Amino acid sequence: RMLGRVLCTVLLVGALPSPAAASQGHISVILLGATGDLAKKYLWQGLFQLYMDQVSSGHSFTFHGAALAAQEAGQRLMFDVLKKLSCPPDEPPNRCAVLKDQFLKLSQYHQLKTAENYTALNREIETLLGQEGLKEAGRIFYFSVPPFAYTEIAQHISSSCRPPAGAWLRVVLEKPFGHDLESAQQLAAQLAGFFREEEMYRVDHYLGKQAVAHILPFRDQNRRFLDPIWNRHHVERVEVVLKETVDAKGRTSFYEQYGVIRDVLQNHLTEALMFLIMELPANVSSAQEVLQHKLQALQSLWGLDRSSAVLGQYQAYDSQVQEELQEARGRVSTTPTFAGVLIHSDSPRWEGIPFLLTSGKALDERVGYARVLFRNRAYCPQSGSLRDAGHSQCKPKQIIFYFGHGALGTPAVLVSRNLFQPAMPKDSWKEAEARSDLHILGQPLSDFYMYSPVKERDAYSVLISNIYHGRKDFFITTENLLASWAFWTPLLDSTSRQPPRLYPGGVENQQLLDFEMVSGGLAFTLAEPAELLSPSRHMPSDFRAIQSKFRQSPLVSAWAEDLISQLASDMEQAALSSVARSGHFHLALSGGSSPVGLFQRLARHHYSFPWQHTHVWLVDERCVPLTDGESNFQGLHRHLLQHVRVPYLNIHPMPVHLNQRLCVEEDGGAQLYAQDIVALVANASFDLVLLGVGTDGHTASLFPRSETGLEGAPGVVLTESPVKPHQRMSLSLPLINRARQVFVLVLGKGKHDITTLLSRVGHEPSKWPISGVSPSSGQLVWYVDYEALLG
Amino acid sequence: RMLGRVLCTVLLVGALPSPAAASQGHISVILLGATGDLAKKYLWQGLFQLYMDQVSSGHSFTFHGAALAAQEAGQRLMFDVLKKLSCPPDEPPNRCAVLKDQFLKLSQYHQLKTAENYTALNREIETLLGQEGLKEAGRIFYFSVPPFAYTEIAQHISSSCRPPAGAWLRVVLEKPFGHDLESAQQLAAQLAGFFREEEMYRVDHYLGKQAVAHILPFRDQNRRFLDPIWNRHHVERVEVVLKETVDAKGRTSFYEQYGVIRDVLQNHLTEALMFLIMELPANVSSAQEVLQHKLQALQSLWGLDRSSAVLGQYQAYDSQVQEELQEARGRVSTTPTFAGVLIHSDSPRWEGIPFLLTSGKALDERVGYARVLFRNRAYCPQSGSLRDAGHSQCKPKQIIFYFGHGALGTPAVLVSRNLFQPAMPKDSWKEAEARSDLHILGQPLSDFYMYSPVKERDAYSVLISNIYHGRKDFFITTENLLASWAFWTPLLDSTSRQPPRLYPGGVENQQLLDFEMVSGGLAFTLAEPAELLSPSRHMPSDFRAIQSKFRQSPLVSAWAEDLISQLASDMEQAALSSVARSGHFHLALSGGSSPVGLFQRLARHHYSFPWQHTHVWLVDERCVPLTDGESNFQGLHRHLLQHVRVPYLNIHPMPVHLNQRLCVEEDGGAQLYAQDIVALVANASFDLVLLGVGTDGHTASLFPRSETGLEGAPGVVLTESPVKPHQRMSLSLPLINRARQVFVLVLGKGKHDITTLLSRVGHEPSKWPISGVSPSSGQLVWYVDYEALLG
Repeated sequence: RMLGRVLCTVLLVGALPSPAAASQGHISVILLGATGDLAKKYLWQGLFQLYMDQVSSGHSFTFHGAALAAQEAGQRLMFDVLKKLSCPPDEPPNRCAVLKDQFLKLSQYHQLKTAENYTALNREIETLLGQEGLKEAGRIFYFSVPPFAYTEIAQHISSSCRPPAGAWLRVVLEKPFGHDLESAQQLAAQLAGFFREEEMYRVDHYLGKQAVAHILPFRDQNRRFLDPIWNRHHVERVEVVLKETVDAKGRTSFYEQYGVIRDVLQNHLTEALMFLIMELPANVSSAQEVLQHKLQALQSLWGLDRSSAVLGQYQAYDSQVQEELQEARGRVSTTPTFAGVLIHSDSPRWEGIPFLLTSGKALDERVGYARVLFRNRAYCPQSGSLRDAGHSQCKPKQIIFYFGHGALGTPAVLVSRNLFQPAMPKDSWKEAEARSDLHILGQPLSDFYMYSPVKERDAYSVLISNIYHGRKDFFITTENLLASWAFWTPLLDSTSRQPPRLYPGGVENQQLLDFEMVSGGLAFTLAEPAELLSPSRHMPSDFRAIQSKFRQSPLVSAWAEDLISQLASDMEQAALSSVARSGHFHLALSGGSSPVGLFQRLARHHYSFPWQHTHVWLVDERCVPLTDGESNFQGLHRHLLQHVRVPYLNIHPMPVHLNQRLCVEEDGGAQLYAQDIVALVANASFDLVLLGVGTDGHTASLFPRSETGLEGAPGVVLTESPVKPHQRMSLSLPLINRARQVFVLVLGKGKHDITTLLSRVGHEPSKWPISGVSPSSGQLVWYVDYEALLG
Repeated sequence: RMLGRVLCTVLLVGALPSPAAASQGHISVILLGATGDLAKKYLWQGLFQLYMDQVSSGHSFTFHGAALAAQEAGQRLMFDVLKKLSCPPDEPPNRCAVLKDQFLKLSQYHQLKTAENYTALNREIETLLGQEGLKEAGRIFYFSVPPFAYTEIAQHISSSCRPPAGAWLRVVLEKPFGHDLESAQQLAAQLAGFFREEEMYRVDHYLGKQAVAHILPFRDQNRRFLDPIWNRHHVERVEVVLKETVDAKGRTSFYEQYGVIRDVLQNHLTEALMFLIMELPANVSSAQEVLQHKLQALQSLWGLDRSSAVLGQYQAYDSQVQEELQEARGRVSTTPTFAGVLIHSDSPRWEGIPFLLTSGKALDERVGYARVLFRNRAYCPQSGSLRDAGHSQCKPKQIIFYFGHGALGTPAVLVSRNLFQPAMPKDSWKEAEARSDLHILGQPLSDFYMYSPVKERDAYSVLISNIYHGRKDFFITTENLLASWAFWTPLLDSTSRQPPRLYPGGVENQQLLDFEMVSGGLAFTLAEPAELLSPSRHMPSDFRAIQSKFRQSPLVSAWAEDLISQLASDMEQAALSSVARSGHFHLALSGGSSPVGLFQRLARHHYSFPWQHTHVWLVDERCVPLTDGESNFQGLHRHLLQHVRVPYLNIHPMPVHLNQRLCVEEDGGAQLYAQDIVALVANASFDLVLLGVGTDGHTASLFPRSETGLEGAPGVVLTESPVKPHQRMSLSLPLINRARQVFVLVLGKGKHDITTLLSRVGHEPSKWPISGVSPSSGQLVWYVDYEALLG
């Protein structure tokens, strides 16, 4: 048997591991898709590099290329690839030639198509190891195949190719891992049927790029300099940028399904950003700590909405799609090839600091970097040239992790000289000469301490080495993947109908793609130049709020996101006029999930809201402690109150928890709240009450056939909900109807039936409490989204 | 009588006001100090300008120069000045010559020394007006005299020279108006004995500088552009800068008493800053509204402390002082000739935005400006030169009010072209050519819309015209003056002992005066280069916290400001270790005035304090509503809680107000609070309790001979204070003594006696409750300032 012979040879060659060292055990690497593009370009070279690096590690290796092609044809193809493997420049040529020869002998092609093929492969490995008296350390299966093939292969491996107990299995998966949260969940669930989490290594090759992989070590080794400044007080912004000059020509069948956000932002740029913003683990070598902190960073991000992004498409893209995909005439692609996205974090460290992710095809240069730009906190009294001399604190201050290409042409880490001289590991990063003729991001290179890798290594070599070392922090865990999709999917959904801005491509883009942060979101700086670029093209018109009547009252209707933005503006307007009129604004808010988006919008986009003069009241509350996650107050606090400056004494949670018990009649919580209202709110007339509607027609915590709260004196009542938690406290209908303004927010398909019903029925509060909302001298406005209104 | 003759001549000359027009009445201008430097240089020219501008206004004028010199000598001196008055270039030479001739005839010298002199002046004016049949409109007395002469002159004017009923009196005062809050109050009180507020015009000649005077009109006329961006979300910083190349040589007798802060920052730079940051009045022409808004802006500023400023002194200053003032050898001047000051406002518009005021003598250039620098909120994907082309949003964005001198040589208003093209009044401001060879603050002039005055006018001409028009908003009211001194005096006090950094002067300063914002304050960027500049000079050593023992417990002592900064750091440290240990930090805080500085320091300088995990409890409370200004909670909220992110449910005010009544035993507020503590604080053991000490030895609200709270079970008690409000709620001594740490803060001379007493007595809580503080298993630390400790 060839494999047996090869292994013997290897084990007997001098300068190679002695049998004693080899007692670490044997590793079998199986590359599925061994003759594909990725394998040809990177993977075989990465495996060869692994072999060169680990040949003396005590492990022995065999390499198994696999594909669907028959044995002979596949083998020929594969060895054509292997013959071209190159030796790295820093390797002594003799040693390399010997090692390459051995690597070829250790490598073998297998057709893996049927269940029998897998069983045979497994038997071969077992036999070999038995013959050689080797202990099996583990098996690596590298899936360099299209995702549709994943499940079948996974099944075969799991059922026929698992290593024996005591040896590990590592399966390496290449993206795409779904195209949205749902599909990613499905794929993850399927894989979870075959592999344990620790067996799966999902590749994001950016994590193998040297400049990206060094972000965490850099932060760790320079803690002393970075600890005081790595926060919102010193950082002005964080940017992660990947600019390409190429376009999608020839790849539109893939690209048309994905677009720039799925292709680059959801994975590569997000991962680089997480390394920059995550809390630094005490031990950055602990894969588990790193993964956990990364996940926390992902979860600290604010949700994205349509206003978070600007999208573009290079002008030739649409015709390329038509040509390559033979699309029906008239269909216009809205797939973005350029995106700028504004991201915010909720963490105390980063609150308020913009993170900008940008990527595009057909731009003016090819370059990628992640940079942290620090605020200018200095004042330099000397004028002009004197001020800019030396390491003035008034020059820009930044740290750049330069992925490669661009002006520098190599990966690099750059630190402004007016920041600090960083600690860098001398064995892997060397200080580069300051070529003062070169500029990077507008500054001469001489303004930076600049380091480049001692040995430039391709990302796949780095990753393959990390698979070998079991460094899971260089890979995407299921949790991480799903959290990232959960973050990006709402933006993908809300922009799917949005026409991207067209751009000519290359230097001609000029300032067409410049964008700005505008009231919490992004917008292109220049007005839409549609007519300039493509006068004949039809753009779907933007969705605008439509106005009409519902139950004899004004109705505002739009898609949910626009509706919420309109409602938030109307609330700010109401607040401003109330404060101008009376000096304060008494606002009663409902709990539940519908207003969460509204609360977030108010907190993030309404800088001028007069919070200092606003009193916040609750419309209703569940009888749980206020610290409970189910409490309406908790939701309100989390999504709104903790982000704005409402004075403490202007916040009025409902006293559902008195004397260590919940909503007991004798404790008089409802009366207490009513007294507070009477004491503080003139005429017990709230300036604005925000309500929702349940599918049963309930509003506030006033349910159909409730014995209290539907009529009688204005007050606060204890009620019973048909769903848990049953006990509630609620403003009564008569109290609500004293308000100057009542806004009712109705969102989602689930509310379509009750909306339709309400459009027909009259005033019947005992059947549908919401129908009893009718302010005696105030105004009622309905905010109903298209889904609730039109189904 | 000469005056009579002159007036007749004027009234009869053609092209001059007809008697009908002159029926507006007569104005007498009396310039005191008519032959002094200021009068020679600016005031007579300003009066002549007033005459030229207003000769057809319907008012008639006479001008009375006055000084101490005898009639003949004074008259000769004065007319030597008047003969040199120049005609402005835009005035037709013929008209000017005629008007100058008339102006000289209308002007007369008076010796004003004795009470009789003043009576005589008054009689002359009355006689003249009677003879000419003129109604008196008003009198302007311009005090161009040293401040020590103010009171006597004021007395004479008030008693002998007031115009008759129906005519106004305006007295114009030149700075200095005191040298700190106390002296300014004294001077203001003296003047108030003679003049009504509306009669006094305090000059700050910066308000007459055209670029300063145009700040408010500019903001008003460009509301549409500025409204969205004139706030903390768009502005990065505001700078007001006055750089001089001259030094104080020849003026040290004045300068040594004042220094740069009193000379320039307290007045000129503060005034310019207020115009930039005040809320814009609806009507900017209303002097009253402007003054009121300016005052509000002043009052919104955070208090300054030593860390707010960096101070310098040019190296030759000290020897100039020794030479000019014949000072005793060995005395070293600490008068600053350079200052950079960091100012913050509490207003919702500006919260968090740094305002930097900078001025110095012996710098590298002469220039003054106020500028608003906007944040870069854009991302421009094109690289290098493409990005910077045209009006890219990625270039700096700023608005500069350029006072004069420097590169431009004229006053100017500059607006970055990537902001907006401003509306400017065409009659007074003209667009200037873009000289692209010139740079201002690092940018070519071609990046700006730039406007300069159609007619350049000297500040005193502008101010004299405004005195004539009664525009009090161009002058400093008493309230305004005192508010400004109230703002600056604490800084002057706290830096009076501080040695300024020495600098060589001029271009040699290099980066020696560069400074930075560091944890809420300012610091020079380069380390102290004392040995470099002046190796032999002795610096008073910095005041450091000394540590020893007090009542067997650790004692930290220092000057108040350093003590508070040490205490704040120790509290943060305690908080961080508590959160690391248990996940939260239970902090009980005392009310009163002592901890205010501490609260402010915590809010402003301790970014890393783990507020999200801190529970804030009250040590004691007065039985007043929590909304009352006397409430401890209110003070805590105002100075600390509203500025930091403590979750709502972690804030625990004492329930002194239940059932609409205050501290009634039956309402069980004390028990309620004790229950809350037991429920939330493990073992009812606070992580840190902060206490103070009263002059009677009380602590918390536990007073000598109190019947409750000094012993017994740990709990919360109602107590009686000897001073109002009498009723209190307080943690008991046994509860306090369960704490892990207790810090006692004692500040000020007033506490010296009790401090001395406490150092001697033992454990006698019924006499001195503070002596009973002795944590059973925790740590007690005393923080006592030098004044309390040493008297």
